[in-house]
Order: sequence, then structure tokens, then C-alpha cells
Amino acid sequence: MSKEITSRATDYSQWYNDLVIKGGLADHSEVRGCMVIKPYGFALWERMRDELDRMFKETGHVNAYFPLFIPKSFLSREAAHVEGFAKECAVVTHYRLMNDPNGGGVVVDPSAKLEEELIIRPTSETIIWNTYRGWIRSWRDLPLLINQWANVVRWEMRTRLFLRTAEFLWQEGHTAHATAVEAIAETRQMLDVYATFAEEYMALPVIKGVKTESERFAGAVDTYCIEALMQDGKALQAGTSHFLGQNFAKAFDVRFSDRNNQLDYVWATSWGASTRLIGALVMAHSDDDGLVLPPRIAPLQAVIVPIYKGDERKEALDAKGREIAAQLRAAGISVKFDDNDNNRPGFKFAEYEMKGVPVRIAMGLRDLDNSSVEIARRDTREKTTVAMEGLAGYVGRLLQTIQQAMYDKALAYRAEHITRADTLAEFERLLDEKGGFVLAHWDGTAATEEAIKDKTKATIRCIQLDNPQEEGKCILTGNPSKQRVLFARAY
Amino acid sequence: MSKEITSRATDYSQWYNDLVIKGGLADHSEVRGCMVIKPYGFALWERMRDELDRMFKETGHVNAYFPLFIPKSFLSREAAHVEGFAKECAVVTHYRLMNDPNGGGVVVDPSAKLEEELIIRPTSETIIWNTYRGWIRSWRDLPLLINQWANVVRWEMRTRLFLRTAEFLWQEGHTAHATAVEAIAETRQMLDVYATFAEEYMALPVIKGVKTESERFAGAVDTYCIEALMQDGKALQAGTSHFLGQNFAKAFDVRFSDRNNQLDYVWATSWGASTRLIGALVMAHSDDDGLVLPPRIAPLQAVIVPIYKGDERKEALDAKGREIAAQLRAAGISVKFDDNDNNRPGFKFAEYEMKGVPVRIAMGLRDLDNSSVEIARRDTREKTTVAMEGLAGYVGRLLQTIQQAMYDKALAYRAEHITRADTLAEFERLLDEKGGFVLAHWDGTAATEEAIKDKTKATIRCIQLDNPQEEGKCILTGNPSKQRVLFARAY
Repeated sequence: MSKEITSRATDYSQWYNDLVIKGGLADHSEVRGCMVIKPYGFALWERMRDELDRMFKETGHVNAYFPLFIPKSFLSREAAHVEGFAKECAVVTHYRLMNDPNGGGVVVDPSAKLEEELIIRPTSETIIWNTYRGWIRSWRDLPLLINQWANVVRWEMRTRLFLRTAEFLWQEGHTAHATAVEAIAETRQMLDVYATFAEEYMALPVIKGVKTESERFAGAVDTYCIEALMQDGKALQAGTSHFLGQNFAKAFDVRFSDRNNQLDYVWATSWGASTRLIGALVMAHSDDDGLVLPPRIAPLQAVIVPIYKGDERKEALDAKGREIAAQLRAAGISVKFDDNDNNRPGFKFAEYEMKGVPVRIAMGLRDLDNSSVEIARRDTREKTTVAMEGLAGYVGRLLQTIQQAMYDKALAYRAEHITRADTLAEFERLLDEKGGFVLAHWDGTAATEEAIKDKTKATIRCIQLDNPQEEGKCILTGNPSKQRVLFARAY
Repeated sequence: MSKEITSRATDYSQWYNDLVIKGGLADHSEVRGCMVIKPYGFALWERMRDELDRMFKETGHVNAYFPLFIPKSFLSREAAHVEGFAKECAVVTHYRLMNDPNGGGVVVDPSAKLEEELIIRPTSETIIWNTYRGWIRSWRDLPLLINQWANVVRWEMRTRLFLRTAEFLWQEGHTAHATAVEAIAETRQMLDVYATFAEEYMALPVIKGVKTESERFAGAVDTYCIEALMQDGKALQAGTSHFLGQNFAKAFDVRFSDRNNQLDYVWATSWGASTRLIGALVMAHSDDDGLVLPPRIAPLQAVIVPIYKGDERKEALDAKGREIAAQLRAAGISVKFDDNDNNRPGFKFAEYEMKGVPVRIAMGLRDLDNSSVEIARRDTREKTTVAMEGLAGYVGRLLQTIQQAMYDKALAYRAEHITRADTLAEFERLLDEKGGFVLAHWDGTAATEEAIKDKTKATIRCIQLDNPQEEGKCILTGNPSKQRVLFARAY
């Protein structure tokens, strides 16, 4: 196990990249901007996906699957939507290859050109609302609460593993409702689901808010988001939930007869979270020795490493190790007993530190004699000697403690990094010297928002839900403002 | 609920289509050859996927995710592979759209042409083996046992819901081994996993065998398969497992140093099963009233329908219905209590028959007085009056009985439809009049196989594992043959 990770202080960006690759989460592929999600990274995604999927189902949603391809003309139906997505998409123009008549391998068969080009979905509102037209007739068909787990493609020019890749995995919920009130309630409900997931599973405190007009999803009336803070003081959007009004229903002519037999357009929401969350997880909690994963979504919660001295009493150590593993497993803890002879304990310790396994249990001959083990917490690096008796219960409680401690630490960091600024100079100094979120007054115009972004690289992450109203003056223009909004430099 | 299903006798093909659409499994989309998997169909796929995934993990496999895109040049690396897959693929040539300068909506931006075209994966051997080159150094890295759940695209000209669609969902396992013996053992193990899944979960008896050279996967040394029989006497391939030899390792230069420090190419397997299995499930078991689903993978195993007479004692009926539902759920049975007031019981009965719910529990006022319910089995249509006392246990046992009965019925049908033919005339008569599998002698040449296919539309489905050896004469050429092979007309 190579421990050569660049430190956060040296180069935060390189540290992140080292962690993702050396921690076994993902790799670059030879396809521009596309990553390979490696088994350990995918196991983490499976844990996250399964919990989210359970939460979606508990709130009444079902899964379905819609085509990967979107006819080019569909994109144009919703005016704002096409502006947002046409610029960064993969376009299928042909459906066959042929042997090069000049002997140059295979080439595109020019006779196999599609009449209408197909876009690889960057998001599926258009193809889904085109389908909903056939599924919705009356108020009895509503609400329609559907989610899809899928791959999507956005042709990003600058990519980073998990954070921004041309292809990524995500879920996209697409719901249809009889009234605006219901659709808005759904939008808010799913925002809460994301926030609960981030905080309770990822140990990641988030701020809930609504985006400004210029940061809205292309085609939405309102975009709600959760915003998290990374260790370098930059913000990361960890999930969005959109109230789409009747925009897509109008674009795809989806109407229903209401209880009074009146025809009306259907109200819509969409909401999504992606493999980007893995990037957030890495950047929020990890340290210079590797990943630090929260127990509730760690693919492996505990590892048992036997410390051999030659072959002395190896069988007894192995037997005890397997016995403890079985006890932990019976208590619902995912655990591995690592009796691999090829690697020494020190190598194993470094490997599991790198992989962020929350609890390491080491056991040598003296431990065997004393009926005890040495337990190391990944988050705090604390070591404790613990009796084998009742170990499963101890580890179970420790995992809960670690989960809470990771959340508390991230929350304390964030609390220290939400600062108020009343002048542009102060605003810029805070961003440069301290980082984090800055609460400042803004005059409410897109032009000012853009100017602040150009000048400081900070964007309005959101207007917080239940934001306190407060009279003030815009930090840039001095124009009157009724509330502070949440700025940050962001991923 | 529309009961208008075309009968099998009238038009088997239309019957299948009616079932898929009216049973809520899938819909055509506006994208040529692509389907929408509807919530009920996707719930069925989730049940199948989860069981297969569990079986893969129990045999030591882990999941990962590789890019959707395959550089065109990768396809050409393995000579047989490119022949098999280049002819039916979606080709991405551009990465941006732009506003038509002539005002015709959005058009492909000609300046955004890719240097090398990207193919949407029809299968992932090439991109995966290109990645494995970086992951495999020594025998310690082997075996590498990876599976991927993904969407793939093959540009089929004639498509049918689930059975053959341009885009479909599947899993593809790709493993790397130090020796041919290990790789062959893996190939056979995964064939067994597929067969176990088909028989124990889908209630679908299958024949295990090996494909002839002309039916082999493009790039494989040997292709093993499981073959199932549909109710119209046609065969359907329900899963394949390929021994790839060192073909892909050589094409992508993947070598490892063995225990003696000698460099050698890695041995490979791949194996896949897809949403096509849903088509097999529908065609093997269903009847003229709708789907018949095996309990072990049915999204809903039981439904409780209250029979109201006006509002009389409605609350008592509802309370009892919910109580029974809770009892069944506690016993691990997936159950729905359908108290929807908008539909009458007769409508609900037809709907759940259409959807193939294995057990229907009806309960009226007289049942309430007698502490009994009426139970109807979907597979045999038998109705029985059963005491409420101990109902969960009764239903649990009934679900097992139904699972076994469905398998036994399909097995008996198949046993009646494996026939021997010793002359071409008999062979053709059997195919035309009886259908099913025909065991016949074949001289072992690809030319004869092709000629028989042209003449009779029957293909060699497989040479059965442990096939009895028997001297005979080829039904077409009269040349000597050492064994009978399994022919059928097939999907």
C-alpha cells in the first residue's frame, strides 16, 4: 500500500485525486472525461444508493426506466431547457460501422445516418414528459411518483473524478401532480429527504435553500438545493429538487381532467443526486492518511488484523479472529478478517487507513492471552484495549459514536466558516483568507450576482429557507436589500 | 382494467405484446427500438436483479462501473469481436448542438466533431480489458471477479419489447484468471448460477449446453448457454457464459507474472443476462387472462380485496383487511390491501389477474362473520375458503406450492416437447406441427448447420452438457455423427 498521498496543505486538489485513486474509489479511463468506478467506490455507491432508494420508496415513489436516447427535437420543446443542455451533449448521428474500403480498420458507414440525431440524455425531463402524455388522463392517475437510476452524459470540458465527469450515475425523480401546492410540497419533501440522507448517513451537515434565478435548473420555476462545505472552505451542491410548474406539461402537452372535469396542464417536479456525492464525502471527512468514511455507509465497517509472530499459535489466532468476525457479523456489522499471509500487519494498517475503514481491531498473542483486542478508530486515530467479552456490542456502539463525531466535527467546522460581511473588501478578504460561506446583502439582480462572481469567483449558493429578513445594502452596488444571501466559492 | 387480450391461439405474438403493455411491464417509446420499462415491470426486474446480484456476490464477485463509451479503435483490436458488434451500434460523432443560423431549432455544431468516434457499448469486453491492463501485474492480483449492471445498445432492425430492443439493461461479468482451468471453471460456475436462478426463482426449466462455433459470442473460445422453452414451442436463450481464452488479453496486452515470475497473458471469461429474461418469464407461464408470475420474484405476492355492500360495516372490513395484511407482511409476504373506492371488486380481480399476482384474498361480510376468506390461486384459478386463523402460514405455504407447481408445469411441457428426429422430413414435420426441441444428428460442419437453418428456420440451440454419445447419420447430409444436438426455432 503506497502511503504517498499529497497533504491537504500542499495541494488540496492533488490530495483529493490521490485519495480517490489510491483509496480504490475510481480511476481515469481512456475515454475523455469518463471515469471507471472501481469495486470499492462502487460498493460505497451501492450503500448510498440503497439507502436513498429505501427513502424514496418510503415516500411513495416507484422506479422505472426510460430510454438513454433523446430525439434532438425534444430538447427544443422547452425554451429554457434547450439553452441549458444543448451545449454539452453527446450526439449520436449514425447506427453502423463498416470496414474501411481503404483498409483503415472500421469507419462510420455514411449510408447509416440517422434521420434525426439522438442525444445521450443529460437529464430526462423531455423523454419522460413525452411519455407521461400517454399515461395521464385524469386526476385519478395523479400523483405519478417515479424515480429512475441511470447514467447521464454532459460534455464537460474540465473534468474531475466524481465531481465533474462527462458520464455519471445518478437518480432522477420525475413527478406529476394535480396542483401547484402538491408539486411544491413534493419538491420540499424530496429536499428534506436529501438533507436527511446527507446528515444522517453521510455525516455531512447541509444548508437548505433556494437558488437565485440565474442558478436555476434550465426549465424550472424554482430550484431548491442542499449545500455542503468542504475542508478547503469551498461549497458543494449535494442535491437539487426542482419545482417545474407547468413548463414541461405545456411543452409536451400533458393535460388531465380534474375532479370537476376541467382540462388543465399537469404540475411537475424533478430532483436528483449523483455520484458527485462521493466526491463530497471524500472532501468533507478525509485526512492526509486516506479516506475517513462514516460507518452508516462504509462498505466495510470493521476489519480484524491478526498479528503473527512466525507460525507461533497461528491457528489459535486465526480461530479467535474468525470467531470474533462471526460475532460482529451476527450483530449486523460488516467486517473482514484479514488473514492474508502476503502482507505484514503494518501494510494492512496503512491499507485500511487509506480505505477509511471506521474501526480496526488488531489482535496479537498477548491479546489472545488477555482475552482482549486493540481497537483503533479511523476518525480520531485513538487506540483502546478492549475485552473480547461483549466486543460486538462495544463495536456497535463505537460505530454510532464515530458516526456522530464525524457529523459534529463537520458541523463545528461549518459553524466556524459561516461569516457575515458588510463590505465588498471584507467579503473578498474572507473568501481569500478564511473561506467558507459568507452571508452578505445583495440587491436581488442577476447583473450584480454576475458582477460579484466575476470579481470574486464567489456565487450565491442559495437563499436559505426561512431566511431572516434584515434591511441592508448590497455589498457591490449599495442598493437596498431585504435579506442576506449565502455566498461561497464552490465546486 | 381492459381484459381485451388477444388469445394465444389467435395470435401468440400479439398475445405477448398485449400482456407486456396491459400488464404494465413496458411501453414503446418514441425512440426507435427503445422501450420504457414501466414501474411494475421495473419492480419485477429489481426482484430478479437483487437475487442475481446476491448470487454473484456469494460466489465472490464485486460490482464496478465502466464507461458507456467505447473508442471506435478498441472494437477493432479483437478480430472476431469487431465482426460481431460493429454492424449494429450507435455512433457518437459530435459533442455539441447549436442554434440553427437559419432558425430551424437546434442542429449539430459541425465544429464539435470528435477526433475519434465513440461507440455506445454493445458489450464491454474491450473497454474493460483495456482497463484491466493497468490493474493486473502479478498472480496476486488474480482472479479478478467483477460484474457490472448497465445499459447497452445494439442497433437491432426488428425489435420486440424485452426480447429484442435497441437499448436494454443487463449485467455483464468480466473475470480474469491465471490459468485456463480456472477460467473454464468460472465459466461453468456462472452457467450454473444462471440455471439455478432460472429454475428456482423464475420457475423456468432450462437446458445447459455449449454453442456451436457459428453461434459463439464474437471473440469467445466457447460459449455456454441456458435454453428455455416458450409456450409456442420456440426456444429462448436465457443467459450465456463465455470462456474467452487469452483473446482479449492478447488484444489489449494484459499480462501477469506467475508464481514462477514468468510473464503470461491472462485468461478471461464473460457472462451476461438481461431484461430479455422478463420476456422469457412472460412467455413461459402466462395465460389468456394475463401474466402469471412465480411467487419468488413477483413484485406483489398477495393482494387483499374487500367486498363491500354499500357502506355496511365498511370500517370492520377495512380494519380486518389491514390486520391480515400486517400479519402477512410480518411473515415476509409482500401484500397490498386494496381499499380503493373508485374501482369495484370485479375490476380489481381482473386487474390483479392481468398483473399475475400469485394469491388473491377476497373478503366480504359473510367471510367476516365466519372468520374466513376466499383465496384464489392465479396459476390454477382454484378458489378455496380458508380460516383467518393462521392465514399467514397458509399463504406462505401456498406461495411455495405455486412456485413448485409452475416449475413442474413448465417442466412437463418441455418434457413433452423434446423429440427425436432421424430424418429431415420428420424433423421438419415436428417443427411445423409440434414445435419444441428436436434432438437430431448433425455432421458437425457450419455449412450443414447453415443449410438446415435456411431450410427449416431451426438453429442448433446447444450441444447439451454431458451429452450422450451415439453413432448416427446427419439428417441433412447423411454424413456420420457421434451425437445428437438440440435444435429448435428460437427467439
